[in-house]
Amino acid sequence: MSKFWSPEVRELTPYIPGEQPREQLIKLNTNENPYPPAPGVGAVLRDFPSDHLRRYPDPESRALREALAEELGVEPQQVFVGNGSDEVLALAFQAFFRQGRPLEMPEISYSFYPVYCRLYGIERQALPLAADWSVDLEAFSATAGGVIFANPNAPTGHGHTREALSTLLERITESVVLVDEAYVDFGGESGVPLVERFPNLLVTGTFSKSRSLAGLRLGYAVGSRELIEGLERVKDSFNSYPIDSLASAVAIASLADREHFAACRGRVITTRERTRDRLERLGFEVLPSQANFLLAHHPEQDAAQLFVGLRKRGILVRHFNTEALRDHLRISIGTEDEMTSLTETLETLCQAPA
Amino acid sequence: MSKFWSPEVRELTPYIPGEQPREQLIKLNTNENPYPPAPGVGAVLRDFPSDHLRRYPDPESRALREALAEELGVEPQQVFVGNGSDEVLALAFQAFFRQGRPLEMPEISYSFYPVYCRLYGIERQALPLAADWSVDLEAFSATAGGVIFANPNAPTGHGHTREALSTLLERITESVVLVDEAYVDFGGESGVPLVERFPNLLVTGTFSKSRSLAGLRLGYAVGSRELIEGLERVKDSFNSYPIDSLASAVAIASLADREHFAACRGRVITTRERTRDRLERLGFEVLPSQANFLLAHHPEQDAAQLFVGLRKRGILVRHFNTEALRDHLRISIGTEDEMTSLTETLETLCQAPA
Repeated sequence: MSKFWSPEVRELTPYIPGEQPREQLIKLNTNENPYPPAPGVGAVLRDFPSDHLRRYPDPESRALREALAEELGVEPQQVFVGNGSDEVLALAFQAFFRQGRPLEMPEISYSFYPVYCRLYGIERQALPLAADWSVDLEAFSATAGGVIFANPNAPTGHGHTREALSTLLERITESVVLVDEAYVDFGGESGVPLVERFPNLLVTGTFSKSRSLAGLRLGYAVGSRELIEGLERVKDSFNSYPIDSLASAVAIASLADREHFAACRGRVITTRERTRDRLERLGFEVLPSQANFLLAHHPEQDAAQLFVGLRKRGILVRHFNTEALRDHLRISIGTEDEMTSLTETLETLCQAPA
Repeated sequence: MSKFWSPEVRELTPYIPGEQPREQLIKLNTNENPYPPAPGVGAVLRDFPSDHLRRYPDPESRALREALAEELGVEPQQVFVGNGSDEVLALAFQAFFRQGRPLEMPEISYSFYPVYCRLYGIERQALPLAADWSVDLEAFSATAGGVIFANPNAPTGHGHTREALSTLLERITESVVLVDEAYVDFGGESGVPLVERFPNLLVTGTFSKSRSLAGLRLGYAVGSRELIEGLERVKDSFNSYPIDSLASAVAIASLADREHFAACRGRVITTRERTRDRLERLGFEVLPSQANFLLAHHPEQDAAQLFVGLRKRGILVRHFNTEALRDHLRISIGTEDEMTSLTETLETLCQAPA
């Protein structure tokens, strides 16, 4: 604590990201992609004229927004880009959710949302999940200051259909509904085609998961022109040039290779389903997942002990020490070989005397 | 205006960065460096294993902070890095200046400072420059909520000595004094050696100007451990990983090449002084500058018309349409050839009938 800090800063409880260990581990803790980015990414890096870096990038990131718009079937004016989807989310909280009425979100979802609420002084209303651990869309109220959830949700992996989103948006029309689609490419249904009909729908996405570019920091939002303009107003009062020239060129190369993208996400989905089967055979209860991770619970095993046992054997998964989740492990989907190592190690751990 | 925007967002007046034109121009409007970044930067890009991009970067940017700390003669815990010094400044406004007392700044300085004040609801007290257009350090009050200025200042180019900073800091001890050193490498005296003595001094810097890496978006702050911790608390409530893996590797390569750095900044300084001479011979009044730009005023010429005339002839400089600055042009220092084109074109424009 320091007398020089703004009073609000003393009250912050920062988000804690998954560990980035320096040692070699089978790393299944931060939902990274086990496959490399598109081969065109390497070519961009090899050929990039470093002299270009002495110039500021385009503050409007026009080339990248045009490429994203084409990929997503919208207009460039409906696309906003940021330094990771975390930055896009933070700017959206500032732009839309400081309304003097509580922001509604599921009790279990991306744990950065409550952190943004504290940073911007936004009151938060947490709503319980439904009995099947899905986000309870009917619980959101039409008088909320805003609604946010991940779809598919994290760390549960459950996703709602586009039709369910549409039904929600027919009911909630007076505040922004932010659907965070960080994981949508692994089997979810995107809400992007709904942005034309619902001016209060903002969909966010990321290059970190399905595009294997977590190290690049590139996220985006899609919505009506008025929502995108709101984000731009905040961004242009915060940082004129959040997207560097290299990141922009790399992201455009990634978007250009649809074949590589489809192949990698297909492999992740196949491995996820195989891993789920194997975990169930070991006695785990595993939620159905449309994401690149599984949330697993063993009725006879302590999750924290399994986490430690795996870590000792060189495998890193994620354990959240909260009341709702402390009996669970969240396991990112790696390569086939990595997931075989995981399930074999879990088999050993489950058979060992307690 | 949209009903979905937070009320504060409706009141924002975003910062307007200098134009990044798509056509080929002699570009002297955004204080970019005319020389390329260190040759090692190109090598980093050619050799970077693109597969590394599928992993999140180190959220603490340890390697980069260690390299910067070594360069600056401080400890890594005294260094903070961000996505351009604009982001570092924005986070500092949040971390230190929301104090319920006005933040003091010169009336003429970097025009982003008032924008941050509006974004974070910080009251601002603007103080006149001294008669010689230097920042009037004695005008700052010990009871301010904080103090911020650029040193050398923008767009005047005037810089105070380290001793003058020290005198200021002996007087102002209860709030943060932020010295923005974006331009210090072109002849200014850095306040970094003072951070050990003054726990309320925060110095910011950038890779955009003297390191020819504006396109990379890399800025930093140096200060006491308690100030750096305050910045980290806000950053970890905003975006866990602001520095991408490529930017980090490129910045480290830039720091490693001291010879290239010294050579480029020497050339800029030499060209600046020659350009100043030539402008004065054309009848301009030019403020002495410790930065990579000149602020020039012609007693018989309209600055806005000169700006337009230069632009028509393929030369882009900066003209600020504010009461205090509308009689001036801010001219970034380019190569010798570019500055010769500038002064020759100005000579033609000044001789033409009005």
